[in-house]
Amino acid sequence: MPDISERGKSMPESPIRKLVPYAEAAKAKGLEVYHLNIGQPDIESPTVALDKIRNLSEKVIEYSHSAGNESYRRGLAVYYESVGIQVSYEDILVTTAGSEAIVFGLMSCLNPGDEVIIPEPFYTNYNGFATMSGVKVTPITAQIDDGFSLPSMEEFEKSINENTKAIMLCNPNNPTGYLYSQDELESLRDFVLKHDLYLFSDEVYREFCYDGKKHFSAMNLEGLDEHVVLIDSVSKRYSMCGARVGTIVSRNKALMSTVLKYAQARLSPPSFGQIAAEAALETPASYFTEVKEEYVRRRDLVVETLNKMEGVFCPKPSGAFYVIARLPIDDCDKFCQWLLEAFSHEGKTVMLAPASGFYATPGLGKDEVRIAYVLNTEALTQAMKVLEIALKEYPGRTI
Amino acid sequence: MPDISERGKSMPESPIRKLVPYAEAAKAKGLEVYHLNIGQPDIESPTVALDKIRNLSEKVIEYSHSAGNESYRRGLAVYYESVGIQVSYEDILVTTAGSEAIVFGLMSCLNPGDEVIIPEPFYTNYNGFATMSGVKVTPITAQIDDGFSLPSMEEFEKSINENTKAIMLCNPNNPTGYLYSQDELESLRDFVLKHDLYLFSDEVYREFCYDGKKHFSAMNLEGLDEHVVLIDSVSKRYSMCGARVGTIVSRNKALMSTVLKYAQARLSPPSFGQIAAEAALETPASYFTEVKEEYVRRRDLVVETLNKMEGVFCPKPSGAFYVIARLPIDDCDKFCQWLLEAFSHEGKTVMLAPASGFYATPGLGKDEVRIAYVLNTEALTQAMKVLEIALKEYPGRTI
Repeated sequence: MPDISERGKSMPESPIRKLVPYAEAAKAKGLEVYHLNIGQPDIESPTVALDKIRNLSEKVIEYSHSAGNESYRRGLAVYYESVGIQVSYEDILVTTAGSEAIVFGLMSCLNPGDEVIIPEPFYTNYNGFATMSGVKVTPITAQIDDGFSLPSMEEFEKSINENTKAIMLCNPNNPTGYLYSQDELESLRDFVLKHDLYLFSDEVYREFCYDGKKHFSAMNLEGLDEHVVLIDSVSKRYSMCGARVGTIVSRNKALMSTVLKYAQARLSPPSFGQIAAEAALETPASYFTEVKEEYVRRRDLVVETLNKMEGVFCPKPSGAFYVIARLPIDDCDKFCQWLLEAFSHEGKTVMLAPASGFYATPGLGKDEVRIAYVLNTEALTQAMKVLEIALKEYPGRTI
Repeated sequence: MPDISERGKSMPESPIRKLVPYAEAAKAKGLEVYHLNIGQPDIESPTVALDKIRNLSEKVIEYSHSAGNESYRRGLAVYYESVGIQVSYEDILVTTAGSEAIVFGLMSCLNPGDEVIIPEPFYTNYNGFATMSGVKVTPITAQIDDGFSLPSMEEFEKSINENTKAIMLCNPNNPTGYLYSQDELESLRDFVLKHDLYLFSDEVYREFCYDGKKHFSAMNLEGLDEHVVLIDSVSKRYSMCGARVGTIVSRNKALMSTVLKYAQARLSPPSFGQIAAEAALETPASYFTEVKEEYVRRRDLVVETLNKMEGVFCPKPSGAFYVIARLPIDDCDKFCQWLLEAFSHEGKTVMLAPASGFYATPGLGKDEVRIAYVLNTEALTQAMKVLEIALKEYPGRTI
């Protein structure tokens, strides 16, 4: 029997999805499980996108151009202009969701053995993509007590070595919800220029900024045209996670030519998804106003309720639809499993994401969980009630 | 300005797609271009699949399970049984087209530096996926004069070394159309067992077998349950290249667990495509009967016409929808470019795929082209006429 490859063995398991069997078992027992563990919003996809799919006139579902349909790329250039980012459609390549954009970006910019600095906690799947690419992730720890703001440039300086080729930032951040300020990004700009690095900016939550704060894109950092690689996706913007349509955007022509070679190898991004995504460009502004109001209500509810619980601390972030909370627990992996396996309140329980999985430094985040506020306020109210009771009953409670 | 990675630089350009600008220029001049260069069939996708998409009831386009929707995987198990392959739905993982299945397979089975033996000429993008995975392709040359049958086991023995971990076979073959016999596959089976290799079997053209010949799947080779990795896709079967839905299938449990980790990193295959692909499982048998009859008409027309041209030789393959023809030309890359750039007949020209791009051994295939018979017989008749005249006018003609 032939062996599994070493890299296959080193590929990380999803720390969230490994809880799935416990959730399935809980449901099989008849429990209602509130899913606050993944970024699958309950928000409806824009009607304009779904209608386009329902009115499909194509008779053959053909390959698109490897870089994506030109009409869609041109539409995206107009969209980016509307959010203050000036790019030509030739700077845009359509990918199979943000995931593929990250893989193409990492492979085009970094060699096996090169390093990418990422503030932690960070989106777990960056680890998977780095492993696929043979790239090492160097974490720099952001602090919950600072609301997960950008670590100081001194921290970045300490982490750099001759193999460091890039920085990856998710803004607004998954899993922390933190929205990086223009000032923070400008300090990072100087660091990037000084060390001639790539800056990967994952801005898939761009639309979800609250409290009157505005998103500042890394694409608008002066002097970084050759350095910034924008990662984007329609998954969250239009609540179309299943469409699998993303983009990689850069003004670096040599980079985009390289990315195109990876895109050509896999021939085409999904055609149905592109049709829906192009139609979604016509989504009325009112859609986002309503969605944002809804998310603010949810965030406020979750953050306020959490901070009233004994021993719980949850910073109030200004973006995305996640919060990280510190809980009075011994071990978040055990706690999240216990919630599904051994706990229920009035036939209900909650599924959370253990924050340990979002840290690359072993041992960090053990008393933290990520909560995705992707359910309506009524469900969230119930889920918070269940969590509060669970925290009182949990055998590994630390207070 | 930061550098492009070495691996990005070594990523091959698509030899077909680099002709695209010439085709675009030809069309801009007002020429009609017969596209015989790519495997994009003109065959309509099954109505049952398109209707399902048009009747979409979902309001949120959600992620699917990372392994694909369970209902679709169960449906696929029934489909495989119908073509004589016994697998459980748990042996099947849904991928973003065959491309992703190959990448996940290579990464799970081979380490960087390992080698995969592939009979050449072979599907060019295998090179791209191997480069992405840091895997070396070792070609073994199949001969046009033998109709591109499987090279002898002596040839395989000569090519093996301590880094060889796998063999990749496309059956029926793209680009040659060759359908491997059960005998050929059984001789390969002994070789695979002897050297404890993986056998990747790309069977995306399974439905397209002619002349009463039956497809024999590598999945039915005895004693290879742990070795065979089936690569599959709905792209050609249902003429849904743009759906981007494929599968990786294996009875090797350790392998499928590893593949799942790659699948989890990218969260989900495309949801729209999966909905269409699941509905396509209900495609009536008459669809394939008609499509096969049409392809046989086209193949016969192309092969007969080609072999009547002076200095041309084209074996008559029993599968897929490609042929490779030997032409009386000095250099197929120059010839294919010349067809688009400098030639026309009555306002028409043809776009072909230079076969040089399908060989990994430098210098081979220089007088060969691949012709995809993906146009109707009327268009093919015209295209063959244009090609015949072009061969007489071409300055690099060798007879």
